[in-house]
Amino acid sequence: MSGSDFAYDFPHRNLLSIADLNPLDAEILFSRASHWLEAIRTANRKKDALKGLTQINLFFEPSTRTQASFEIAGKRLGADVVNFSAASSSAKKGESLADTVRNLAAMQADILVVRHPAAGAAAHVAALTNAAVVNAGDGMHEHPTQALLDAFALTRRLGGLGGRRVLIVGDILHSRVARSNVQLLNLLGAEVRLCAPPTLTPVGAAGWGAQVFTRLDEALEGCDAVMALRLQRERMAGGLIPSEREYFRFWGLTHKRLDAAAPDAVVMHPGPMNRGVEIDGALADDEARSLILDQVEVGAALRMAVLELLGENARKHNGGRA
Amino acid sequence: MSGSDFAYDFPHRNLLSIADLNPLDAEILFSRASHWLEAIRTANRKKDALKGLTQINLFFEPSTRTQASFEIAGKRLGADVVNFSAASSSAKKGESLADTVRNLAAMQADILVVRHPAAGAAAHVAALTNAAVVNAGDGMHEHPTQALLDAFALTRRLGGLGGRRVLIVGDILHSRVARSNVQLLNLLGAEVRLCAPPTLTPVGAAGWGAQVFTRLDEALEGCDAVMALRLQRERMAGGLIPSEREYFRFWGLTHKRLDAAAPDAVVMHPGPMNRGVEIDGALADDEARSLILDQVEVGAALRMAVLELLGENARKHNGGRA
Amino acid sequence: MSGSDFAYDFPHRNLLSIADLNPLDAEILFSRASHWLEAIRTANRKKDALKGLTQINLFFEPSTRTQASFEIAGKRLGADVVNFSAASSSAKKGESLADTVRNLAAMQADILVVRHPAAGAAAHVAALTNAAVVNAGDGMHEHPTQALLDAFALTRRLGGLGGRRVLIVGDILHSRVARSNVQLLNLLGAEVRLCAPPTLTPVGAAGWGAQVFTRLDEALEGCDAVMALRLQRERMAGGLIPSEREYFRFWGLTHKRLDAAAPDAVVMHPGPMNRGVEIDGALADDEARSLILDQVEVGAALRMAVLELLGENARKHNGGRA
Repeated sequence: MSGSDFAYDFPHRNLLSIADLNPLDAEILFSRASHWLEAIRTANRKKDALKGLTQINLFFEPSTRTQASFEIAGKRLGADVVNFSAASSSAKKGESLADTVRNLAAMQADILVVRHPAAGAAAHVAALTNAAVVNAGDGMHEHPTQALLDAFALTRRLGGLGGRRVLIVGDILHSRVARSNVQLLNLLGAEVRLCAPPTLTPVGAAGWGAQVFTRLDEALEGCDAVMALRLQRERMAGGLIPSEREYFRFWGLTHKRLDAAAPDAVVMHPGPMNRGVEIDGALADDEARSLILDQVEVGAALRMAVLELLGENARKHNGGRA
Repeated sequence: MSGSDFAYDFPHRNLLSIADLNPLDAEILFSRASHWLEAIRTANRKKDALKGLTQINLFFEPSTRTQASFEIAGKRLGADVVNFSAASSSAKKGESLADTVRNLAAMQADILVVRHPAAGAAAHVAALTNAAVVNAGDGMHEHPTQALLDAFALTRRLGGLGGRRVLIVGDILHSRVARSNVQLLNLLGAEVRLCAPPTLTPVGAAGWGAQVFTRLDEALEGCDAVMALRLQRERMAGGLIPSEREYFRFWGLTHKRLDAAAPDAVVMHPGPMNRGVEIDGALADDEARSLILDQVEVGAALRMAVLELLGENARKHNGGRA
Repeated sequence: MSGSDFAYDFPHRNLLSIADLNPLDAEILFSRASHWLEAIRTANRKKDALKGLTQINLFFEPSTRTQASFEIAGKRLGADVVNFSAASSSAKKGESLADTVRNLAAMQADILVVRHPAAGAAAHVAALTNAAVVNAGDGMHEHPTQALLDAFALTRRLGGLGGRRVLIVGDILHSRVARSNVQLLNLLGAEVRLCAPPTLTPVGAAGWGAQVFTRLDEALEGCDAVMALRLQRERMAGGLIPSEREYFRFWGLTHKRLDAAAPDAVVMHPGPMNRGVEIDGALADDEARSLILDQVEVGAALRMAVLELLGENARKHNGGRA
């Protein structure tokens, strides 16, 4: 063992989709995330679980916050972390994704954290390399670490997800977060509801394993948690929503609105949030009801757990041991 | 103690403004900076005073050089350093400064080094987080580490600042460096003079605790040191100065001009400098008279001292100890 | 010794040009690169040969891939690595290259890895600083680590370069890779050939120590290795080549074309490659014939060797020892 101090066998080389996980995998991840959460709450948190490993953050879409979370997580575990921004990269010189990945793999990258605008990109990358691949968002497809950190934050607050009712409200149509969350919440035994303007409800949503609503008050009934999704302003240009003010009036979360939910229901948001659009600022800042900053904090710990478990496997598969 | 080998108590959580410091604080900072200066002059300078701590450089204005200085300083002290560039960040997605900062703090950042175009931004950030905040320039307000490194370089050369006469010449109006420097030089007992074209002299400059001049030769009389400020070329477009050549003729520093100052008077510049505008190249390169590269070198050491002292306090306040 | 475990004396402070090297230097570099290649093939590769040293990647031209290779190499050796991108740097504020370099040197940089669009820039930088300077590409002049990694990959495959025939095909006119490769291959005893469209053949090519061809089939005769150069698409706008399809038909590498070469002849490409322009995709991916990914992998090891040898010398010259 080169630094890590546990002995679970995590049976995955990559984290591409929630569909690949079973409830025990989630439990292992949450257990390690709890460990790291305690560790990062003290200021002496440098570990060497990933010492000697190279983690490359390969971002074809900018996302400073998600990238920073993975960068911090990897560095705290002792990895050499390199940010490879596609904006100024060889992709611009006409190189294919496959060739870029083969090149980074040839530099003996152990972990590739990949964000890409195309659905399926992370799986495509994983097929090309022995490095462990973490999907950090592929088009409108999946964003599994976001779903895991959401479920982890919720589990910590509610004590468990079995039988809990969780509502996801907002731009379901364009949201990879929604897709990953519905799967994971179902897997962990929650009852999932979706609520969106008709123009932002995917055609097949009824088949996702969630009840679909258009009116927020109905959807909120008896919910233990509500996740608001980010509204991308460019959707308005496309005519999908009338105006931010209208949107907030019908689908924005407020303390008053939350009266329709279960007592003590909590609110969540994957960030960055538009205050006064998806959620009222006062509610977002209400520590008794809002898990929004919890999500960020436990997110760093959850990503440490993912990098640790996949990194250990990469070390076993790809190389020797000192 | 987790790496650092000294026992001063530095009574500040943040470094926001020179106004917060007393002469003893400056002495402590200079003493630690002297220690680190010796250390970095040998090539084996990796220390672990900040091991386990996370430093985020949060730059809303580009400043590669200042950022590199803080990055190098933090890495040499063993911190995990992450550059968070606002150019491609969630700020662009409409997130407020406050939300960005709350998010980074939630990732358990211990030190935030902040540069922002708005005066007061660093203090605003400090009010939102338990992390130690270093003001790396906020609008036209302050740039305290620049003032500290200038005074440190000058103290090393002159033996002390008490009773010394120091002139700051150039674009006082737009300069946060000037504001911070006047305060610190006064605090350390120097007599401060300002000299600028009338269009670049702030209205209230007479109340800063410095004598204000328009003509350089008068201002230089008896000065032990002259700090030239960078002239931003966009000022010319605004009609504030006639042309670079004119500016150099009236307010540019040369060997000849320096004859009006005290014998052995030294020149300084915060960089990047426009040779032939604020200062003659031959004078800038004259090691007997120019402290310009000294400023950069001692600056890296001074920033190590700031990060070390604030980092130790952050470790005490925010977390446990290994 | 502070981490490295060998005792060669590498008699160079910088790596600026292949012209500065003799065959023994190359042998030393290849020997250390072999050592590091074994090390990075295991997943526990963190070393501290460069611990306490600061490496700055100073890139005035974007090259994500080369920069990543140097960054990974430096981090694996324990250096503090800082990327200094000129795009957002003080160069934009009118600072000269010389002043930028003097500033970074004053921050006690030990190794500067420099890429710049002007021929001779790296040598100019080296004259200004005590830091070890690695030329990572200067205009159309040289790219010595690319030549070294090419020769290293080839030596590993062929067992040695003495008496081997190597062809470089493509845009010789604009290629620093070609210039560096011709020199090094000659130094190591290979017979070098060049082949390019007449518009992309430099006027003085006949004097480079290589036989110059225009027709690929003639050039290929008896060659043990063929290096294809990247075709920059902007050359087409300039009318230097008719079209990508035409180029591929006359100078593109294919399995069929390779029949004219020696049996088992191998193909190489410095990347990023345009499949179907300089080389057929099927040939590029044929592990029996293509060294393209080998080049990338051994490149990381070769750059570790360069950084280690120069870093050790910088440590001796510029500072003490712990």
